[in-house]
Amino acid sequence: MSTLEATKVTEIQKVANRLVALCREGKNLDAINELYDDNIVSLEPKGSRHERTEGKAGVIANNQEMFQTVEQMFSTTISEPIIGGNFFSCVMEMDVKMKGMDRMNMSEICVYEVKNDKIVFEQFFFTMGN
Amino acid sequence: MSTLEATKVTEIQKVANRLVALCREGKNLDAINELYDDNIVSLEPKGSRHERTEGKAGVIANNQEMFQTVEQMFSTTISEPIIGGNFFSCVMEMDVKMKGMDRMNMSEICVYEVKNDKIVFEQFFFTMGN
Repeated sequence: MSTLEATKVTEIQKVANRLVALCREGKNLDAINELYDDNIVSLEPKGSRHERTEGKAGVIANNQEMFQTVEQMFSTTISEPIIGGNFFSCVMEMDVKMKGMDRMNMSEICVYEVKNDKIVFEQFFFTMGN
Repeated sequence: MSTLEATKVTEIQKVANRLVALCREGKNLDAINELYDDNIVSLEPKGSRHERTEGKAGVIANNQEMFQTVEQMFSTTISEPIIGGNFFSCVMEMDVKMKGMDRMNMSEICVYEVKNDKIVFEQFFFTMGN
């Protein structure tokens, strides 16, 4: 691996570790403010409420909306990130009771792309209605 | 976690482990034949040669085409898979010399969806021209 490539991996790892650390503390909005590019593109599965969101303000609004629907969060678990090129991936799990719903486990694969130390793209993989 | 959910995680883990094991042995085509659903949907980054491929025969053809362009494969590395719901993700890295190109490191995040013990969807994340 060239020095340039090694430096890049370290930078991606640093952003990945920081995102995971902040989300583990429940500081998801801080993570977005600190790490996300203004022109972030965010994708969720086809048919979901926020299939495609562009821009930091939109992503923050989606997160606020989601947290407002939570009645009780029993636990969240976030895996260590795995790094591939400019991308990283991790698993996020929630044991949660949303308003008007039964308590449930939600689990998703998250993929992020980093450019110039900022997250420019995120995509979430989960089964709708699961 | 309910018993049903625990059983599902085990099934996904089993498929994930098998895919990784076969690919580590270089048996990518065996992996496709054994683990892929006939109606697999395969996505690569926008602008890549195979942005969207549908069906097992097409995915096999893409793989054969790719391997035919390899002049020398120095090493491949595949991470342990991480599991989220019906999805899993891993990192694949190659130290490779393609015909007519310099030796290079290629690295990608791979995401797979499993239904009824078969891989029904895969998506690869890498930077074009990297």
